[in-house]
Amino acid sequence: MDEVPGSLGTSAGFALRLGQTVFSSASLLFMSLGVEFYSYTAFCFLVTIMGLVIPWSFTLALVDGYSVLVKCPPRQPGILLTVVVGDWVLSFLTLAAACSTTSVVDILLKANNRSFCPPKLCTRYQVAAVMAFLSWFLSVASSLFNLWLLPSL
Amino acid sequence: MDEVPGSLGTSAGFALRLGQTVFSSASLLFMSLGVEFYSYTAFCFLVTIMGLVIPWSFTLALVDGYSVLVKCPPRQPGILLTVVVGDWVLSFLTLAAACSTTSVVDILLKANNRSFCPPKLCTRYQVAAVMAFLSWFLSVASSLFNLWLLPSL
Repeated sequence: MDEVPGSLGTSAGFALRLGQTVFSSASLLFMSLGVEFYSYTAFCFLVTIMGLVIPWSFTLALVDGYSVLVKCPPRQPGILLTVVVGDWVLSFLTLAAACSTTSVVDILLKANNRSFCPPKLCTRYQVAAVMAFLSWFLSVASSLFNLWLLPSL
Repeated sequence: MDEVPGSLGTSAGFALRLGQTVFSSASLLFMSLGVEFYSYTAFCFLVTIMGLVIPWSFTLALVDGYSVLVKCPPRQPGILLTVVVGDWVLSFLTLAAACSTTSVVDILLKANNRSFCPPKLCTRYQVAAVMAFLSWFLSVASSLFNLWLLPSL
């Protein structure tokens, strides 16, 4: 059985999942703590999607960590296909949320003479969008590594 | 050699490419004709991406049409890999542009008491965003069909 680094049940895969969890949690925290995010649809969308990504990545991080410890990576095609499709859908949703947030922040920054967006809040929105993009990037990487492994099963 | 309907060089693939060309052209036209789209970054992004998608889809539609006529689909792994990667990158970019446009239109609609967005213009922006989403959907379909064919070569 050949190992693809970064796929399900490897230590690189564990690192990818951990990075996704950290970045999406950071995005959620920066967006939601003390900020009235619910006044814009795009921000609510980002919070919803991050609320989906965090449990997904955290669960798979636990699976990866356990597989590394017992040295027995899960190699059932059904499980792997589920993981690939889930990663896939979530990566599209994360990209959509990150792009929406970015363009809303851009609009708010341009209209700052109307005091839509105090500088401190806008910086937090921007950081949340950047974190969401990083989470998307790691999610696509996970998905590609698992997809690469799939035909060899 | 097995045929995957919708992959490169089949009549279903030709229909997919034609749909992509039509939808992305419609999106470009609705966004750019008589509209001051360059005042928002997201709209400029959409126009740029549609300007990339149209020649790509049109070229591949020509290739598909020619292959169907001469009954000899291109089956070199290198060509197919290039097409899959190109479809992939363009579908991500199309999704990003469509989401950005949608959220900007949403913001403009909410602020319509400030007359940012006359109803006629806003409808055109919305139609452009919907066309971009349809083009993205067909692009993902093309990419998946070609990816499905790739390991069998």
